Amino acid sequence: MNIKMGVAKAGIKPSGDYDILVLKFPPSVYSLVLTQNSLAAAPVIYDRMISQTTDRISAIVVNSGNANAATGEEGLKNAEKMAQIVEELLDIDEPALVFSTGVIGVQLPMEKVEKGIKEACNSLTDLDLKTASRAISTTDSFEKYYQTEGEIDGKSFKVWGIAKGAGMIHPNMATMLAYIFTDVQIDKHLLDRVMKVVVERSFNSIDVDGCESTNDSFLIVATGEGKLKITEENKTPFAKKVLEVATNLAKMIVKDGEGATKLIQINVFNAKDREEAKKVGEAIALSNLFKTAMFGNDPNWGRILSAVGQLHLDIDFSRVKLYIGDFLIYSGEPVSFDREGAVRYLKENDEVNIYLYLERGDADWTYYTCDLTYKYVEINAEYTT
Amino acid sequence: MNIKMGVAKAGIKPSGDYDILVLKFPPSVYSLVLTQNSLAAAPVIYDRMISQTTDRISAIVVNSGNANAATGEEGLKNAEKMAQIVEELLDIDEPALVFSTGVIGVQLPMEKVEKGIKEACNSLTDLDLKTASRAISTTDSFEKYYQTEGEIDGKSFKVWGIAKGAGMIHPNMATMLAYIFTDVQIDKHLLDRVMKVVVERSFNSIDVDGCESTNDSFLIVATGEGKLKITEENKTPFAKKVLEVATNLAKMIVKDGEGATKLIQINVFNAKDREEAKKVGEAIALSNLFKTAMFGNDPNWGRILSAVGQLHLDIDFSRVKLYIGDFLIYSGEPVSFDREGAVRYLKENDEVNIYLYLERGDADWTYYTCDLTYKYVEINAEYTT
Repeated sequence: MNIKMGVAKAGIKPSGDYDILVLKFPPSVYSLVLTQNSLAAAPVIYDRMISQTTDRISAIVVNSGNANAATGEEGLKNAEKMAQIVEELLDIDEPALVFSTGVIGVQLPMEKVEKGIKEACNSLTDLDLKTASRAISTTDSFEKYYQTEGEIDGKSFKVWGIAKGAGMIHPNMATMLAYIFTDVQIDKHLLDRVMKVVVERSFNSIDVDGCESTNDSFLIVATGEGKLKITEENKTPFAKKVLEVATNLAKMIVKDGEGATKLIQINVFNAKDREEAKKVGEAIALSNLFKTAMFGNDPNWGRILSAVGQLHLDIDFSRVKLYIGDFLIYSGEPVSFDREGAVRYLKENDEVNIYLYLERGDADWTYYTCDLTYKYVEINAEYTT
Repeated sequence: MNIKMGVAKAGIKPSGDYDILVLKFPPSVYSLVLTQNSLAAAPVIYDRMISQTTDRISAIVVNSGNANAATGEEGLKNAEKMAQIVEELLDIDEPALVFSTGVIGVQLPMEKVEKGIKEACNSLTDLDLKTASRAISTTDSFEKYYQTEGEIDGKSFKVWGIAKGAGMIHPNMATMLAYIFTDVQIDKHLLDRVMKVVVERSFNSIDVDGCESTNDSFLIVATGEGKLKITEENKTPFAKKVLEVATNLAKMIVKDGEGATKLIQINVFNAKDREEAKKVGEAIALSNLFKTAMFGNDPNWGRILSAVGQLHLDIDFSRVKLYIGDFLIYSGEPVSFDREGAVRYLKENDEVNIYLYLERGDADWTYYTCDLTYKYVEINAEYTT
């Protein structure tokens, strides 16, 4: 894909690593989902404004190390300025979107930011996903990127993605940023519909600690350079490929969750409808009692079912079946099971599966979470302001 | 008050301490709130049934050490049997209610339970709140009881209460049980209305880890022995006294929260309405990022406001004011404040106050929570099945 990348070490991030990323691409259709946290950051407010007036963009600029959140009027002006500099230096007619992640409540060091953006814009190379991911990360412990390709009606297409998230130390919250690029031709309306399905099943189905950030953003860009045109008829296989990329990025974010030792996939089956299936998965994923039990490698069915019971749905627990890995641990009532085997399964895998059958309908959902550990408490209690 | 107490060491609790409590009182008006967890325990199902058919009771029986939850038909029969034995031995015409707390998913050891109930019924003495509290507790680290008295229209009245909660080790969840006794004359309808206000402002405004148990129960009993008759006109000062007892018990539960080092009172002011005020308090109380910051004595305003932002209300954060103790730490925007002083305030007090002014209306609410600590993770991850 014709996507050019510029990075710079502007000195915003204390580590001194890359903290500015500029991506330039042909005027492209895009779809954007932004945090609903009402304490939204300046770049989120700016992008929301821009996306109401245009359905094509030609660039994005991201800084890491400072979230430009809770920064008032000045913050908003700075976000706008970041976009303007990029649009000018890259000489593009369509707007650039702006993203920030890092410390909140502190104004951007604009001199450094401007210098960094200039450096990035003046040193464009072909997009390298790993480097791009590194430039947007804060306390991430590894780079998050994924690429795939597909073929529909004999025409091949590409889907590339990068993300950051789950780490935050100084001082406030984990921000999730994700960008997916594809070369298909697609109109905005259809891309928005694909986005809706994809975001629900991926980034809206992960939890590290139940906290939504002021800066969370997810962008899909379709450059239209490829031969494949997405229509009503072939949108499903295309959406699946985008979902593959999004889900893999989402899982990397959970795996890199603060202090996490394992990724937990909560697979809910036979719910009344999708909304219920998702709700049930989420209730389990958010339960601190469940998350600590997973850290302790404890096949504790009581905590799982009780988290579901807390939703006050009219679930008949005498029909419910619950597995941890291959181990059936509850089947309408407590059952005797190979406890040692289940403990070993939890202990020896850094990716574990819970399967919950509600026997109420045919909707299913997978929710992704991680365990709650000493390290989580340490990171969030000790390494602070 | 004419309340007789029997306790026994039946051997249900591994510690060997008192695990059966029987209380006998004159046929009394009562109001009962039970867990809404749809995985409700057998005694909860039984009491719900009883309370639909009678508005007077004469006794309660509680066992600790086994929750009789997720125990199916057999569990329900056992709960019923506990009530029957008590009703028979105490020779009462009005029913007894049954409560259980402890391990879930294991049938009650009925031989021990029956022997214990007999022993308790045969050794009635005057109610001693401390002993009664001890008999219903599981992993509580101290007894929870509180008593007060009041005077309305020249007539005095008493309000006594006991509670247990917040500790759970083996294996499943913290159960909250609370019983309040008063000697006023009141009809059931009015007592139910008092209950509604009291439970919302006390036990429904506390959080240890966001997990609602299968056995949570709160009972108010009005024996009617006293001279004071509660009417529409004098119900408010009476409700206040009941709330005083309930709030003090609720705070003891939070203080004894698993691994907690401090009780945190989140005081929300100037919300649009009470529902909003409570929601905002709860959102902060449930935030793991906030709870770990409190453990780390970190006056982290970003985590507090972000938790509020997550509710997606149309709050104007440029009007919001936030205090930790006496320290104004946010006033429409980040403000410079005596950070060392605020840290010291958090460090040196085991009861701390957050004050949040939303400037949207005149509703207020106080929500009680505790910090999230290494010890919480240890208790819930390590000491398990």
